[in-house]
Amino acid sequence: MSDVPPAAGLPTIGLPAAHHDGSELYVPQGVPVLGSTVPVRVLVSDPSVTGVHLRTVADGEPRWVSGAFTTDGSDAAGQRWWTGELPITGPVTRYRFLLERADAAGQPLEPVWLNQFGLIARDVPDYHDFRISTNDPGPDWALDDVVYQVFPDRFARSAGAPAVAEIAPDWAVPAQWDDPVIGTGPQTPLQFYGGDLDGVREHLDHLRALGVTLLYLTPVFPARSNHRYNASTFAEVDPLLGGDEALAALADAAHRQGIRVIGDITTNHTGDDHPWFRAARAVDASAEARGRYYLSDDGSYISWLGVASLPKLNFGSKALREDLYGSQDSMIGRWLRPPFELDGWRVDVANMTGRHAADDYTLDVARGIRQRIDTDRPESLLMAEHGHDYTADLVGDGWQATMNYAGFTRPVWSWLTGGTDIGGQFLGVPGGIPRRPAEAITGTMRDFDALVPWTVQQRNWNILDSHDTPRFVEIATDPAVAEVGIGLLFTMVGVPMIFAGAEIGMRGVNGEDARRPLPWDRRAEWDIARLSMFTELIALRRSVEALRRGGLRWLLAEGDVIAFLRETPRERILVVAARAAWDGAALPAALGSAAETLYGGTDLLDSYGALAVPAGGPGLGVWRLH
Amino acid sequence: MSDVPPAAGLPTIGLPAAHHDGSELYVPQGVPVLGSTVPVRVLVSDPSVTGVHLRTVADGEPRWVSGAFTTDGSDAAGQRWWTGELPITGPVTRYRFLLERADAAGQPLEPVWLNQFGLIARDVPDYHDFRISTNDPGPDWALDDVVYQVFPDRFARSAGAPAVAEIAPDWAVPAQWDDPVIGTGPQTPLQFYGGDLDGVREHLDHLRALGVTLLYLTPVFPARSNHRYNASTFAEVDPLLGGDEALAALADAAHRQGIRVIGDITTNHTGDDHPWFRAARAVDASAEARGRYYLSDDGSYISWLGVASLPKLNFGSKALREDLYGSQDSMIGRWLRPPFELDGWRVDVANMTGRHAADDYTLDVARGIRQRIDTDRPESLLMAEHGHDYTADLVGDGWQATMNYAGFTRPVWSWLTGGTDIGGQFLGVPGGIPRRPAEAITGTMRDFDALVPWTVQQRNWNILDSHDTPRFVEIATDPAVAEVGIGLLFTMVGVPMIFAGAEIGMRGVNGEDARRPLPWDRRAEWDIARLSMFTELIALRRSVEALRRGGLRWLLAEGDVIAFLRETPRERILVVAARAAWDGAALPAALGSAAETLYGGTDLLDSYGALAVPAGGPGLGVWRLH
Repeated sequence: MSDVPPAAGLPTIGLPAAHHDGSELYVPQGVPVLGSTVPVRVLVSDPSVTGVHLRTVADGEPRWVSGAFTTDGSDAAGQRWWTGELPITGPVTRYRFLLERADAAGQPLEPVWLNQFGLIARDVPDYHDFRISTNDPGPDWALDDVVYQVFPDRFARSAGAPAVAEIAPDWAVPAQWDDPVIGTGPQTPLQFYGGDLDGVREHLDHLRALGVTLLYLTPVFPARSNHRYNASTFAEVDPLLGGDEALAALADAAHRQGIRVIGDITTNHTGDDHPWFRAARAVDASAEARGRYYLSDDGSYISWLGVASLPKLNFGSKALREDLYGSQDSMIGRWLRPPFELDGWRVDVANMTGRHAADDYTLDVARGIRQRIDTDRPESLLMAEHGHDYTADLVGDGWQATMNYAGFTRPVWSWLTGGTDIGGQFLGVPGGIPRRPAEAITGTMRDFDALVPWTVQQRNWNILDSHDTPRFVEIATDPAVAEVGIGLLFTMVGVPMIFAGAEIGMRGVNGEDARRPLPWDRRAEWDIARLSMFTELIALRRSVEALRRGGLRWLLAEGDVIAFLRETPRERILVVAARAAWDGAALPAALGSAAETLYGGTDLLDSYGALAVPAGGPGLGVWRLH
Repeated sequence: MSDVPPAAGLPTIGLPAAHHDGSELYVPQGVPVLGSTVPVRVLVSDPSVTGVHLRTVADGEPRWVSGAFTTDGSDAAGQRWWTGELPITGPVTRYRFLLERADAAGQPLEPVWLNQFGLIARDVPDYHDFRISTNDPGPDWALDDVVYQVFPDRFARSAGAPAVAEIAPDWAVPAQWDDPVIGTGPQTPLQFYGGDLDGVREHLDHLRALGVTLLYLTPVFPARSNHRYNASTFAEVDPLLGGDEALAALADAAHRQGIRVIGDITTNHTGDDHPWFRAARAVDASAEARGRYYLSDDGSYISWLGVASLPKLNFGSKALREDLYGSQDSMIGRWLRPPFELDGWRVDVANMTGRHAADDYTLDVARGIRQRIDTDRPESLLMAEHGHDYTADLVGDGWQATMNYAGFTRPVWSWLTGGTDIGGQFLGVPGGIPRRPAEAITGTMRDFDALVPWTVQQRNWNILDSHDTPRFVEIATDPAVAEVGIGLLFTMVGVPMIFAGAEIGMRGVNGEDARRPLPWDRRAEWDIARLSMFTELIALRRSVEALRRGGLRWLLAEGDVIAFLRETPRERILVVAARAAWDGAALPAALGSAAETLYGGTDLLDSYGALAVPAGGPGLGVWRLH
């Protein structure tokens, strides 16, 4: 924010007429029990609201919880809490509120609904209802995570790593660490830099200095590619990465430094040299062996997006389910045990797993993997990759949450894009990512958020870029605008994920190009300002509980500006993001009379006795209000 | 419409920028085959649209069908058809369109999505995607239905019916046909008027004269109430109604007159004197017998909304499934065979059927019943009762469609209400049904419609009132306003259902009060103008294919006015509904230059060379445009 004082008569940001979400201010935290009743609260700021009714659905029938809602009267600033009791009637209980309204003379006004999307003055289907689940949402520690994604071939080579030329396998195109990445073409998956797990271990100090709490490793299984998503087996760590011992040593070292570690497994497909696939294609293959894939009698088979080296698994096969997650010794289970003790999994292509034509085993598979994890290593993480509408897959008893490309990445890109056309690649849209105003991008965010329980919103990974996308700096081409996106990453609901190298400003125009080796020995290339920004924002998030666990009240979404509150019973944090210069605005008195600046460098101005957000931009500010 | 000529400079109704739906203009009619490709078309009226892209989801992954979309150029009026190919990749294929746009100078404009809800300038989840299903949507004849609902105790007593006092059973409170109905209190379900099925048969001429094609009988099974939703058995017709012979005779007579007949069955519960429940509660009850209900060891049990006489069925029981729909001789199957040959079922409380706490067998039960019907009497109807958000239950292989209280009844009530508060009864809302503007009610309609395939929208029953609601005349208290609602009933997408007596203006302030005996012998009480209106509108619907099978393009929804088109490749019908006087509007040239008045009595005025809808209201007009 720049330092221009607001003009007299600055418009005041309005409060939403009423608000509710799944955070501590509104709902008791913890997993409710089927058949119990939980108190729920609504914060009302609009004086026209004269009554609050709760509508839920029990055993398929709507049920009104009326009358029981009471208010303790307005606070000094005109906000009122309404409180009532919500019966927990199923595994996922849906509910919303009807707000009765009247004008100052007592004449009835049109009532409005309050659901998870917001306020709406017409009748609506249930899809945007608030959801509260009796399923365990996943580990509580996940809420405090700062995730760091490492692509092992490109992160670091250990001090003792043998020369690439010595170890490069037959499929590989060896590359020296400082060689440019080949971003497209047949050599792209074959270019082999020889990063290893000891190399990751030797750089844990970097993660710790940054403030990372969770290390997410893309696949470490042997495979005939640098990305290793075409696993030759799930039963051992690639010797090129240092083998099982290196993973055990890395996990141990990370755990000692307070950093958890999760793996990455492809449940949708294997490599075509996987023993399961070789057995399935053998001349004398048993029906059980063949049944693990979608094989036709003519030898053709279904594969991931038609890529023949990635044959698709068929979860109609019980044998496959058993081997993948049916026992402690299964592929999912074995890595959760000592000496590895992985803290969970990220599941590759979870959106396609188990889905083919009329087959849809996805939720079954998710449940099976979840049960394995919950049994073998309780309090572990289970994250689904999903690049589009994930909401129907997050029903509570399977995947815990997802990589939130649809509800975070794409809206943020769309708000902050400098016009880059990423073409037909992952997350691409014909004609390029359109530049849209704040109303549109918060609309998209609210829409996705409103289709899953709050506990899932909290656990979804927010992502600015990954190994599958261009680097965010290629989208938000203005560094001051990029800072706005990075600020949102660490202040919004959801767990921030950093693709290694983002923190030092690494570039890359597509997912493959973004997998450039980290320039550990070329510090001059590091964007030190960006590293400071990441470090400061991570420290802020880790020190401010409301940024990790607080509710979310939207205050403003207009063109170039977004403002929202993150609130707990103990603190109120204001975040204002502007992608361009704006005129600033005064804050309503209900939000407090004093403010402490947490990020952005500019104090809230006291204009005629009211707090006011200063004009300027692009920029991001974070304040604690009192 | 009144006859006031529009003022010069009348605003012109705009066309939606682009449109697509599941009707013949846009998609080939018929059930597509998995793995096939179907041509789909988009009608574009906005000259800024420069490209059309189709996005679908295959095997859980988004897929763009781009480039293949081409246009044959603008027609004279500026409308363009874009055509492409949609791959059918699953049982339900979802798709939507992205419209690329540019200004007159060729500068890109923000692209917009076109989904089943409409046009939206931000990224969206998939819930409003267009849906096309490989499941048989149900009988084609259903699209042409005009449904007439009969509550047997109250419709008519046959000429040969014995005196009520002679036959009234022990539970009954006998009533003479002209006695007032007791609308609330313990006697409400017991008041017994002695209507019978021969009485229905003797009045089939009334149905035929009205234009009815489907007779829907509320339950005819023996029960200890006048409504018979607490069945003592599903195996015979109540002797009080004339027994099995009377049902066979009624069905035969109706079929001979071109009227189909469906029954009504409670799958959620039985009466507490049903043999299944008696067996379940017997001292020596087997586990199988007990398992059909939710019985506790202390003798308590789960019942419909806590009403002890309606014990809830537990579809965890295989024996229950077998007896209800597992064979030709099952309760569902036996009535589809001669001599009854019912043409299908309406399923009572389908929304709760199979649902209790963590149990959710609803879709399984729906599929089982559907298979029974499809096997025993193909081309039969299976309608679900559902009073709120039915959309997740209409997945294509179970219930074919629903009673559209949520997507039709309540929005129409909300637009046309005279302020009646129906209290806490069925469809009730705290504070009364709010009066809302046209934008709100068409928003609700579009929202529900956009969550199911077009084939379901077409088959849903539109309802102004039923045996469970106040009569519509009690909601739309101004007769001229009521005509608007009745006009919508017969012109919108969906099958019109008439609760017997609506056509002669019968009254009733709640569902029970609405079950007044039909005054066959008191013709002076008949609202003859209303009967003419119903007869005329039914004849119109039956003679105009586009009203039964045409697409739906919304033109206008503002406060007091709604206008829409029903279109096929052969005709274009304009419907304008006004709940109050309005100023009229000119029509865009693209819609034609001549018009034939089909309903409403007022021609479209040719104002300065353009067709224009005259000012006035309340009223409803229907025109064929050329």
